Amino acid sequence: MLFATRSVLPSLSRHVSAALRSSTPLPQPSQTSFTLSLRTMSNVVPGVTPDAPAPSAVSNRPEVKRDAHPFSRGQLEGLMTKRFFYIQAFEIYGGVGGLYDYGPTGAALQANIINQWRNHFIIEEEMLELDTTIMTLADVLKTSGHVDKFADWMCKDTKNGEIFRADHLVEGVLEARLEGDKQARAKEAGETVAVPAEAAGGDEKKSKKKKVKSSAVKLDDALVEEYTSTLAQIDNFDGKQLGELIRKYEIRSPESGNEVSEPIEFNLMFESSIGPTGQVKGYLRPETAQGHFVNFQRLLEFNNGRVPFASAQIGKSFRNEISPRAGLLRVREFTMAEIEHFVDPEDKNHERFDEVKDIKVPLLAKDVQESGKTDITIKTIGEAVSAGIIDNQTLGYFIGRIYLFLVKIGIDATRLRFRQHMSNEMAHYASDCWDAEIHTSYGWIECVGCADRSAYDLTVHSKRTKKDLVVQKAHKEPKVYDAWVPTIVKKNIGPKFKKDAKLVEEAILEMNQKQLEELQSKLKNGSAPLSVCTGQTFELTTDVVTVEMKTIRETVREFTPNVIEPSFGIGRIFYSLLEHSFWTRAEDQDRGVLSLPPLVAPIKALIVPISSNEKLAPLVKQVSRKLRSAGVASRVDDSNASIGRRYARNDELGTPFACTLDFASLSKGTMTLRERDSTAQRIGAIDQVIDVIRQLCDGSLDWEKACKILPEYSGQQDVDA
Amino acid sequence: MLFATRSVLPSLSRHVSAALRSSTPLPQPSQTSFTLSLRTMSNVVPGVTPDAPAPSAVSNRPEVKRDAHPFSRGQLEGLMTKRFFYIQAFEIYGGVGGLYDYGPTGAALQANIINQWRNHFIIEEEMLELDTTIMTLADVLKTSGHVDKFADWMCKDTKNGEIFRADHLVEGVLEARLEGDKQARAKEAGETVAVPAEAAGGDEKKSKKKKVKSSAVKLDDALVEEYTSTLAQIDNFDGKQLGELIRKYEIRSPESGNEVSEPIEFNLMFESSIGPTGQVKGYLRPETAQGHFVNFQRLLEFNNGRVPFASAQIGKSFRNEISPRAGLLRVREFTMAEIEHFVDPEDKNHERFDEVKDIKVPLLAKDVQESGKTDITIKTIGEAVSAGIIDNQTLGYFIGRIYLFLVKIGIDATRLRFRQHMSNEMAHYASDCWDAEIHTSYGWIECVGCADRSAYDLTVHSKRTKKDLVVQKAHKEPKVYDAWVPTIVKKNIGPKFKKDAKLVEEAILEMNQKQLEELQSKLKNGSAPLSVCTGQTFELTTDVVTVEMKTIRETVREFTPNVIEPSFGIGRIFYSLLEHSFWTRAEDQDRGVLSLPPLVAPIKALIVPISSNEKLAPLVKQVSRKLRSAGVASRVDDSNASIGRRYARNDELGTPFACTLDFASLSKGTMTLRERDSTAQRIGAIDQVIDVIRQLCDGSLDWEKACKILPEYSGQQDVDA
Repeated sequence: MLFATRSVLPSLSRHVSAALRSSTPLPQPSQTSFTLSLRTMSNVVPGVTPDAPAPSAVSNRPEVKRDAHPFSRGQLEGLMTKRFFYIQAFEIYGGVGGLYDYGPTGAALQANIINQWRNHFIIEEEMLELDTTIMTLADVLKTSGHVDKFADWMCKDTKNGEIFRADHLVEGVLEARLEGDKQARAKEAGETVAVPAEAAGGDEKKSKKKKVKSSAVKLDDALVEEYTSTLAQIDNFDGKQLGELIRKYEIRSPESGNEVSEPIEFNLMFESSIGPTGQVKGYLRPETAQGHFVNFQRLLEFNNGRVPFASAQIGKSFRNEISPRAGLLRVREFTMAEIEHFVDPEDKNHERFDEVKDIKVPLLAKDVQESGKTDITIKTIGEAVSAGIIDNQTLGYFIGRIYLFLVKIGIDATRLRFRQHMSNEMAHYASDCWDAEIHTSYGWIECVGCADRSAYDLTVHSKRTKKDLVVQKAHKEPKVYDAWVPTIVKKNIGPKFKKDAKLVEEAILEMNQKQLEELQSKLKNGSAPLSVCTGQTFELTTDVVTVEMKTIRETVREFTPNVIEPSFGIGRIFYSLLEHSFWTRAEDQDRGVLSLPPLVAPIKALIVPISSNEKLAPLVKQVSRKLRSAGVASRVDDSNASIGRRYARNDELGTPFACTLDFASLSKGTMTLRERDSTAQRIGAIDQVIDVIRQLCDGSLDWEKACKILPEYSGQQDVDA
Repeated sequence: MLFATRSVLPSLSRHVSAALRSSTPLPQPSQTSFTLSLRTMSNVVPGVTPDAPAPSAVSNRPEVKRDAHPFSRGQLEGLMTKRFFYIQAFEIYGGVGGLYDYGPTGAALQANIINQWRNHFIIEEEMLELDTTIMTLADVLKTSGHVDKFADWMCKDTKNGEIFRADHLVEGVLEARLEGDKQARAKEAGETVAVPAEAAGGDEKKSKKKKVKSSAVKLDDALVEEYTSTLAQIDNFDGKQLGELIRKYEIRSPESGNEVSEPIEFNLMFESSIGPTGQVKGYLRPETAQGHFVNFQRLLEFNNGRVPFASAQIGKSFRNEISPRAGLLRVREFTMAEIEHFVDPEDKNHERFDEVKDIKVPLLAKDVQESGKTDITIKTIGEAVSAGIIDNQTLGYFIGRIYLFLVKIGIDATRLRFRQHMSNEMAHYASDCWDAEIHTSYGWIECVGCADRSAYDLTVHSKRTKKDLVVQKAHKEPKVYDAWVPTIVKKNIGPKFKKDAKLVEEAILEMNQKQLEELQSKLKNGSAPLSVCTGQTFELTTDVVTVEMKTIRETVREFTPNVIEPSFGIGRIFYSLLEHSFWTRAEDQDRGVLSLPPLVAPIKALIVPISSNEKLAPLVKQVSRKLRSAGVASRVDDSNASIGRRYARNDELGTPFACTLDFASLSKGTMTLRERDSTAQRIGAIDQVIDVIRQLCDGSLDWEKACKILPEYSGQQDVDA
């Protein structure tokens, strides 16, 4: 379980999907109405109750009926390609699974999300930003545990060599069999059913899921139950158990029908070699976190030796997935934003806790899950920390800040929850861990992890490098106490233990009070045996070491800080935001709209000259210049398409506002302002409209207030319908 | 030479250093006064003549004597480490050569440079921003030529296996011998000399140069001349020639004295494997450019099928250097910002050329270099394009925009030049190429490449993938002309040539007018032989193909756009800017100052409470909040250090302004404003001072004008001296 909690993205494979399948009722992908599924899930998806704080990004939007048509993932994906938000990388070469390129709209949206993140966290909280290398020395990742444990199980088709992720294979085959059973039963009952079966596959040249064909074979009722129960736990099996399932259920390669090998571990890091000798091994980092830890001492110095402080980093990380799937949700290269907040383990209070303590957040605590339920409780962060549900103030503070960030950029607060890791999910060293999960058509997706990682990381790096990664904090009053203190007789220990002297010395210095007391008592009686880390035993005598009770006057306390780590998967937030923003017009299901908040919309304002008449050109340039100096990113669309088509295209691009210039603009200096979601149009003097747009974009004005400033437009050229 | 010009960074190894050594008189590194060297270089380094446009970032700075002490690279590097601008990556693990981590100040400075770049290029010119993957399918880089040609020469110590970059080895050894000769001659003359010898080495675990020890051995005068001449051309030798030099001069491994192997090619890309099969090979991209080219068709579609347009991308690229050196200038992982401007080959004029045509830029044209000189001419871009020195308007436009960008962020305009590639440096397909070179203590460093790459990239990818990467442009009037047109008889060609039918068909369709005319005439006489790409020959007859003269009415022209590529090495610009900004106070050589322009400075304003008295704390918070809402990044320094030390620390961090709060702030509501370079202090009401800082940071006010608003401060607490 070590790496499940290590960072936000690695854990999808095992835990999010586990959470998805085990107990949460899931909306069906794509074909099923999302709106419908939400309705049936009222006990799972918390509504924004009257008590909950109004999520600003949502309430700022005009009231528009967005659920006339069910959500269609296929339609959203089509839009993403058509408007070049993102596409599979190396498309003209046939594409590579798990690698995606962001086009102009996607890159701008991503840059805006990152920019908001930087403002919300780094600037607002004066974090120390880092930019550390992607190429990482293997030693570092050996120490962190990634070399040994950051792996998935795979098995091979014994004849054609095709490779499968073992859990995906079992899952795909069992799901197909259940599907076949459903079909057979439907046939018996005289119905017709045609639902696509689930995927299994391991081809890295294709992003499309390989589907396991299902044939209408009826299963025993007991077997159906067994399969269902196995699927619910699929993420909890290790390689040996997966191998047993494969043999027990006679699972074979779905396409060839050949037998598959025993599952073997496949490390998920991309490996390379640094320099020409081939002797310095490197990996592409699987997370940015290690770059913070190895620089801890420099960061501490920069912060004048004081904790708490936080470092932050935004950058690419890599994970060589066996079989990438679910679009942007499980990829081989992704952007992360990670914070490592270093804190005194004896004081995890947070200076600014008061600012978040009254925020109400939807929580799914571990005890609820452990009792087999998924009911969400809405609590203020202050209550949750007081009640011990959230372990400490700092963790609570970040949960609050994460909530505010996600809602600010446009995540629907009613489809957001914080799920606590259960004891068996959490790494042994972690003291508490909460994931911000966002609901999408794939189910609940872990998008942000927020873990208290205790002193684990700094301790292992310090041990490996023999560098002190500690904080020294002056006591307000010196502490005076008695303690056993060993004194090593340097001039004797060397000659006596020769090459082992250092080992012996280290072992003595690592002894705790109880051990020292014992040593003292044994030494008094002659000699004492000492086991060192290599397993050897040495005999100690008073000529090499003595132990005495001394009075210690401690002015400084030295400790390894604990780390609280909020870790964001930017690509997952990006995708979830797109799902939450996408809907189709009630009057025309083919007209998609992306209701992105102005804060993150790729382009804030579209400038539309009503015709290609040359007289309008200078005015178009002028408005464009004015918007730019007001800090509003805008685009001109002077194509020949009808004005309605141009509006529709920009609805798909998520552009919140459009300024339309017509001949009245020339004669009267007016301009109309169209709002994307409502398609409402207002009118005003050009400079006034620009000022309103500026305020709408920086959040100082909402649409309702804007309507009070600008009167409704009901001119002839209302061609929007 | 193919890859020398491919992108900004790869070319350092061969060309910048060539330019440095061959003919340019070089200021000596580090030990020598940089100010002095500049003075002796008046024919090389262009001064900002009265004609030249005033480089704003420089003239906006207060007049301060910055050259009292010679530039010391060691001192700058010390500051970089002490203030955590950047350090070698994995420092606590011993470090890895060519990999650097940016700390909080460095990361902020880098982020600000990138932000300015995004505003100056992407936003201002409405470029299409991309974010494509770092992990790149090997096929793509095979097509681009990188798999075959992106390499350096290395050789091995035949006994201990140590690896050297061949040119570095020859260079290091010959320089050491020349140094030994100098020492021997000095000894003869009764002088003492102790100058460090040059480096050679190939150890990727250490960043420090390995020095080749020199021993005082006098050389023949002829040999001194031979060595000197060899060193001047060191970057022009290929592997075979380097091998000859190694044998001729009996060059051995400097440390072990062992023989070294013949130079072999070492590909500089980091290689990895995508997915679990090991069959899909990937490389870390050596440049971002290929990500633009493979997405060309999507970009064109996004731009409504029209050219010109530009795509842009900022991101990490990689180069597995054999022996990294020169700090940030030759590294294994670096940030690039690249623009690919796609243009009609028949019209390379630029719409906004007028905006740059009067900018005067320092040019080092190829004919000057080919005549063995390095004299710089200052010309307006308009003149240079008219005179054919710069090939076309678009290239000229970008040279102008690059110049403005570099000067805006703080590069000293008098240490900047545009050097044209000589014919033998340029890739065969490129039609013109200019490098923006910045002068540093390492000599002239290529920081931006600006190349007209013709249709090369799109053509090779199109050929490889059989996808059309072309633009269709409607003629204003249809073109009507006669031409030979082949008609293939589909129903016969298959049965006749069977599996070769496709090859034959392709070969016919690729024929030009002359070949078609010949074919027609031969067919009239019975049959015609046809060679296809595999080397096979087939006999054509009129039952499979006929050729006729037809009248063509062409309404659309189809062409492969040309690409103009400005490519920025952000790390090199970053480092050059630091050298140009660093100086030490006349009165104290240990007090370093980084005169970074407010536009890019990591922190714009320091808030300094005069004492730790608790009464000042609320005011400090208030000023901090006000600065933040004015958009000014600030930091509080409430440490116990003296106010003078706190100012000095922030001079080293490049913080341009400091606000000092004292007890008069409480009683009278005033605040002093300290300017970093001059250490001058002014005073005003708190809100007024904040407004002045805001304007100083956004560039709407310079210091001189600020002084007219705020009176001089000459209070008691002037503790700056």
